[in-house]
Amino acid sequence: MAISKKKTTVQVLAAYRKQGARIETKARTKLAKKSDFSLWYTPGVGAAAAHLARKPKEARSMSVKKNSIAVVSDGSAVLGLGNIGPYGALPVMEGKALIFREMAGIDAWPIVLDTQDPEEIIRIVKAIAPAFGGVNLEDIAAPKCFEIERALVDSLDIPVMHDDQHGTAIVVLAGLINAAKVVKKDLKKLRVVISGAGAAGAAIAKLLFAYGVLDLIVLDRAGALYAGRGDLSPAKEELASFTNPRKVSGGLSDIMEGADAFIGVSGKGVMSAEHVRLMAQGSIVFALANPDPEILPEDAKRAGASVIATGRSDFPNQINNALVYPGIFRGALDKGVQNITQETKLRAAKALAALVPKPTADQIVPGLLDRRVVKAVANAVR
Amino acid sequence: MAISKKKTTVQVLAAYRKQGARIETKARTKLAKKSDFSLWYTPGVGAAAAHLARKPKEARSMSVKKNSIAVVSDGSAVLGLGNIGPYGALPVMEGKALIFREMAGIDAWPIVLDTQDPEEIIRIVKAIAPAFGGVNLEDIAAPKCFEIERALVDSLDIPVMHDDQHGTAIVVLAGLINAAKVVKKDLKKLRVVISGAGAAGAAIAKLLFAYGVLDLIVLDRAGALYAGRGDLSPAKEELASFTNPRKVSGGLSDIMEGADAFIGVSGKGVMSAEHVRLMAQGSIVFALANPDPEILPEDAKRAGASVIATGRSDFPNQINNALVYPGIFRGALDKGVQNITQETKLRAAKALAALVPKPTADQIVPGLLDRRVVKAVANAVR
Repeated sequence: MAISKKKTTVQVLAAYRKQGARIETKARTKLAKKSDFSLWYTPGVGAAAAHLARKPKEARSMSVKKNSIAVVSDGSAVLGLGNIGPYGALPVMEGKALIFREMAGIDAWPIVLDTQDPEEIIRIVKAIAPAFGGVNLEDIAAPKCFEIERALVDSLDIPVMHDDQHGTAIVVLAGLINAAKVVKKDLKKLRVVISGAGAAGAAIAKLLFAYGVLDLIVLDRAGALYAGRGDLSPAKEELASFTNPRKVSGGLSDIMEGADAFIGVSGKGVMSAEHVRLMAQGSIVFALANPDPEILPEDAKRAGASVIATGRSDFPNQINNALVYPGIFRGALDKGVQNITQETKLRAAKALAALVPKPTADQIVPGLLDRRVVKAVANAVR
Repeated sequence: MAISKKKTTVQVLAAYRKQGARIETKARTKLAKKSDFSLWYTPGVGAAAAHLARKPKEARSMSVKKNSIAVVSDGSAVLGLGNIGPYGALPVMEGKALIFREMAGIDAWPIVLDTQDPEEIIRIVKAIAPAFGGVNLEDIAAPKCFEIERALVDSLDIPVMHDDQHGTAIVVLAGLINAAKVVKKDLKKLRVVISGAGAAGAAIAKLLFAYGVLDLIVLDRAGALYAGRGDLSPAKEELASFTNPRKVSGGLSDIMEGADAFIGVSGKGVMSAEHVRLMAQGSIVFALANPDPEILPEDAKRAGASVIATGRSDFPNQINNALVYPGIFRGALDKGVQNITQETKLRAAKALAALVPKPTADQIVPGLLDRRVVKAVANAVR
């Protein structure tokens, strides 16, 4: 980029100030005549109200619930920026609502919460659920995100998905399927290192394992997870139970030797050119931290990486969950699907990968503007 | 109406089923090019997120908060239908969101709560407030609505208004100002009977008193409120403290004798032709219960009422808070006004009445389609 980081930020903020809101509401019916008011407001609305009180399930066909998603965050883990609270989360959730609308025709509204207590978050989302057809949880820190998602999936009768986990895992698997083709390796036999044991890292490890990738190593800030490390949370114990079959320990410098793929869902600057040079021939580097990747693409390339991806739209190979969540919720809303199962996620990843039948180093996933994406992912939801 | 009530309901439900949602979201910016994603999603959104985390007040100019209202209900007092819960409330809140959009260009979203505990409602609305520029509380039962509104007004830095109270009070005062002109009486000297001591009745009594109407009698199901009745809640004690100066007691049959105006915010069938016949010459009957008024206009007319109004759009003189809430929130959002004071409400009522300089028995308030209404009310907010 020709302009400095500082200048870019100033320009971006000026654009957001000029823009104001990025989404708005729109009437789907006219209020032009008095009879419109009689039907869509009072007295007509009284009949609809009395009816839905008796038959709440029909809200799915007679109200905004038919096509609406709450995009919910407490701002505890926003992008790679960390715990920046609800106002920090707001532009991101609004951006997701914009993408839901433009990509999938879904009415998504940003809900950012001025509380970070998991029990409270669960209570609030349960309480506001009646007007929504689904809940996209977003940018909520691990490990509480696991508890929150589980409680909501168990108690609500609408689809609930923590996108940082499953959206990310699906698009990463899709990208890896095609990256393995590019470097002519068998994905199931790859040595994969995942930097980050939070929401995204945990879900990626689980989905890759479900796909059949067995040599997985997950790192947190203290290094590789392994069974019996002693300082692991229950969520990390679970990860350690099925990963790291060779029982390695240490940091990236100790374990990158011979790795085929690196998946960064951690933070800026975690990876160095030196780490890339330790990898096997035909190495795959997904540096997905947003907005600042673990290593810049040009640095990874110079150090010998064969396929490089980031989460950003201003570099090639954008491995971004925006390829996933619009289609997942489109499919779930259209088909009344309540649970996004592991099978659905595997199908969605394969469908996404299949949209690029002849992947190259510079194109392993379809672009965000590819109109086939939402349909292909939605079709995977059953 | 030529068609039976039953048939009407069937037709209305068919229309709602065919319609599905009545509002949707709309993009205010394009996502057509890759650079659009870079700016409005990642990496651009990271700069906005980091900025708003540091300067949350700027969310008002850089996000949906600029123009958005949460229309919140727990469904505990929906229209005249009573406690029918969140799904019953949903069509009403969605209808209000539609009106906010079409009348005032406001992005309102329905939030119906699956809880009726006042403390919980307060916590939830506080928690979801960051993404909204205001909160319209709606169809929440008295007396908890008073506590909820007070707590939220005190703790949030955005306008919060319980519309059943203040929207109704404002439009009733506007209607009475002009109805008094029609019957050529001095409003401040009228004997006014208010049937209903809930949210609307209480607010109407307070606003009329603030205007200078001193002979007010408020009734609940047990009859007229008076200081020392013994069975009064704190909210009703407060009402009794400044109303019923002649210390009358009993039901409508006992107190309608000589009344100049009847304001019904209670329920279907509360008023009979006999009650109307007891009133003074040039009587004013506002039968505002929705969807079924206290007395049907034709019955009130036959019994001698001079000016008759309901809350419905299919009769003349629709005294509906839809004349008020779009303008109140439009004004509050545009001017960054946090508190809707009693002075604002009096100004709004006078402004609304002034839009009908020569009122008649069939036109005491402007119609819902009158485009001057929102502007006039918004101008009253300072």
